[in-house]
Amino acid sequence: MKLAVIPGDGIGVEVTAEALKVLRKLVPDLQTTEYDLGATRYNATGELLPDAELAQIREHDAILLGAIGDPRLVGPGILERGLLLNMRFQLDHHVNLRPSRLYPGATSPLAANPDIDFVVVREGTEGPYTGNGGAIRVGTPHEIATEVSINTWFGAERVVRYAFELAQTRRKHLTLIHKTNVLSNAGAIWSRAVETVGAEYPDVETAYCHIDAATIYMVSDPSRFDVIVTDNLFGDIITDLAGAVTGGIGLSASGNIDASGTNPSMFEPVHGSAPDIAGKGIADPTAAILSVALMLRHLGREEDAARVEQAVEADLAARGDGPIKTSEVGDRIAASL
Amino acid sequence: MKLAVIPGDGIGVEVTAEALKVLRKLVPDLQTTEYDLGATRYNATGELLPDAELAQIREHDAILLGAIGDPRLVGPGILERGLLLNMRFQLDHHVNLRPSRLYPGATSPLAANPDIDFVVVREGTEGPYTGNGGAIRVGTPHEIATEVSINTWFGAERVVRYAFELAQTRRKHLTLIHKTNVLSNAGAIWSRAVETVGAEYPDVETAYCHIDAATIYMVSDPSRFDVIVTDNLFGDIITDLAGAVTGGIGLSASGNIDASGTNPSMFEPVHGSAPDIAGKGIADPTAAILSVALMLRHLGREEDAARVEQAVEADLAARGDGPIKTSEVGDRIAASL
Ligand SMILES: CC(C)[C@H](C(=O)O)[C@@H](O)C(=O)O
Ligand SMILES: CC(C)[C@H](C(=O)O)[C@@H](O)C(=O)O
Repeated sequence: MKLAVIPGDGIGVEVTAEALKVLRKLVPDLQTTEYDLGATRYNATGELLPDAELAQIREHDAILLGAIGDPRLVGPGILERGLLLNMRFQLDHHVNLRPSRLYPGATSPLAANPDIDFVVVREGTEGPYTGNGGAIRVGTPHEIATEVSINTWFGAERVVRYAFELAQTRRKHLTLIHKTNVLSNAGAIWSRAVETVGAEYPDVETAYCHIDAATIYMVSDPSRFDVIVTDNLFGDIITDLAGAVTGGIGLSASGNIDASGTNPSMFEPVHGSAPDIAGKGIADPTAAILSVALMLRHLGREEDAARVEQAVEADLAARGDGPIKTSEVGDRIAASL
Repeated sequence: MKLAVIPGDGIGVEVTAEALKVLRKLVPDLQTTEYDLGATRYNATGELLPDAELAQIREHDAILLGAIGDPRLVGPGILERGLLLNMRFQLDHHVNLRPSRLYPGATSPLAANPDIDFVVVREGTEGPYTGNGGAIRVGTPHEIATEVSINTWFGAERVVRYAFELAQTRRKHLTLIHKTNVLSNAGAIWSRAVETVGAEYPDVETAYCHIDAATIYMVSDPSRFDVIVTDNLFGDIITDLAGAVTGGIGLSASGNIDASGTNPSMFEPVHGSAPDIAGKGIADPTAAILSVALMLRHLGREEDAARVEQAVEADLAARGDGPIKTSEVGDRIAASL
């Protein structure tokens, strides 16, 4: 297995080390190439994602990313557009896969402590994320700025199909989240995609929910969700909330997947680089380790993926409320495999 | 006081009756004109908001709306665009005011039962809500749909100013919620508006928060918020979540305000028409009654507004967990004034 590794900034570096520790236990012949991308590199060289490096990264089976960003070194939006989103777009990562589970031992802010186990299939290459739009008369009282959400049948159909396939392996329930009553043009594509593709998956029950109402269900009745399919922006929002209600985004893994297999897929924790706690060895590497599980599953190693998830589950259940030591979590999980 | 009343559909009719009961106690010379708008009317006549009626509505001091919609009678999006949003746009309701408070006696789904008391100032006439956008090749594999978010300095500046004014009367803290790292053109207007207008309000502290992170804070640390200012779509999303964590949108009031005073402002509960429980007399009229408080405050009757809020507070604290009777809640609150 040839893996491109982008540790990134801050705690990204620390959690990636633990994720690799775990991965090496299951894949002894793992070959890794490290790429120094992120805030530190950009600050030193002005480089974000040079073409030559992207070309090399493409030659790998998968990509493991820690976290990037450091507000002390780089202004807002630069790394997001130039590196993170750039990679998602160039590598056609149209499926942004984000499972949410409330593990035994994890603490939800919800009083009811409900059963939570769903997966969000977030579109990754369209919607309001395309950078389409602009501004005129900037800085004057007549300034106008637009942001254009681009939605295609091609783009919606393929993630909706991915979501139905996934739902078939789970509880066979798929919820579309959108805002079709206001965003009617885009909404029509999504609703029709669910209807049309759904006809091929008659065993999967479908539901629809506006994004505003979805946030209510997320705190009042998250058990209703099995697989969620949604657009890029709504997926961004609902997965952070989902992470929060399942014990914090320190436990949330994600995959940026090219479901066609043309380009390597990228796996990363949902959390950021957390410069404030970087270097202290107290970051929770669980999300990075669960991202390894998603990667293994994507690469056809279902059994290994399940072993990692079971090991994480056991570790979370055994943990007390005390502070975390990054390397100890990785050691414990690796040792238990 | 001349009030245009739009009871609407479903429980809208029931909660409006209670809101008027309360209002009449404080404004004995109240003159009301009722407008039959909503799903039932549309279903019977095909009419949404005839010009002549809108012209009449304009002649009032304020508008009280119950709730509109009935999925059995009208397809999705029709009443939203043709009536609700139409009214907000035509009457220039640029400030969508949505307070959130966790009242003693109300049950939050959050385990920590935190202190929650903030107000969202949502922009009401721009953003992705303008209906700008379209679709080509509809129904083919090459379908493309756009949704254009329109953002102007004019539009952002005036709501940001409203929010600063409001913050000065409260805990003097203002949080901008946006997604500036991705929606950089629109984001720049909002950030600059907060910076520029903020210079005139040096006593108000400001903070910024991405919409995704904001949903996390909403469940993990909602006490950090005092006044929130945000765009139309993010405001839609965050206020539903805010309603949920403060005991359900059955308690959430809102005002659609033309801060220039040119057009009458409209006050309505955030909840919908709930056809499933309509006619049973079990809908909670609290949100409608709190909307009356917002209306009284907007019309310069701060003392009356505070009295309604105190009466609601007392009523919520005294309520048990038993089922609600719509008319009894209205009777109790009216009697206590
Ligand atoms: C950093 C940002 C561009 C990104 C996004 O909005 O997609 C992040 O929030 C995420 O969810 O991965
Ligand atoms: C009904 C819908 C158009 C409306 C909105 O999105 O603004 C509603 O959700 C609200 O928040 O008032």
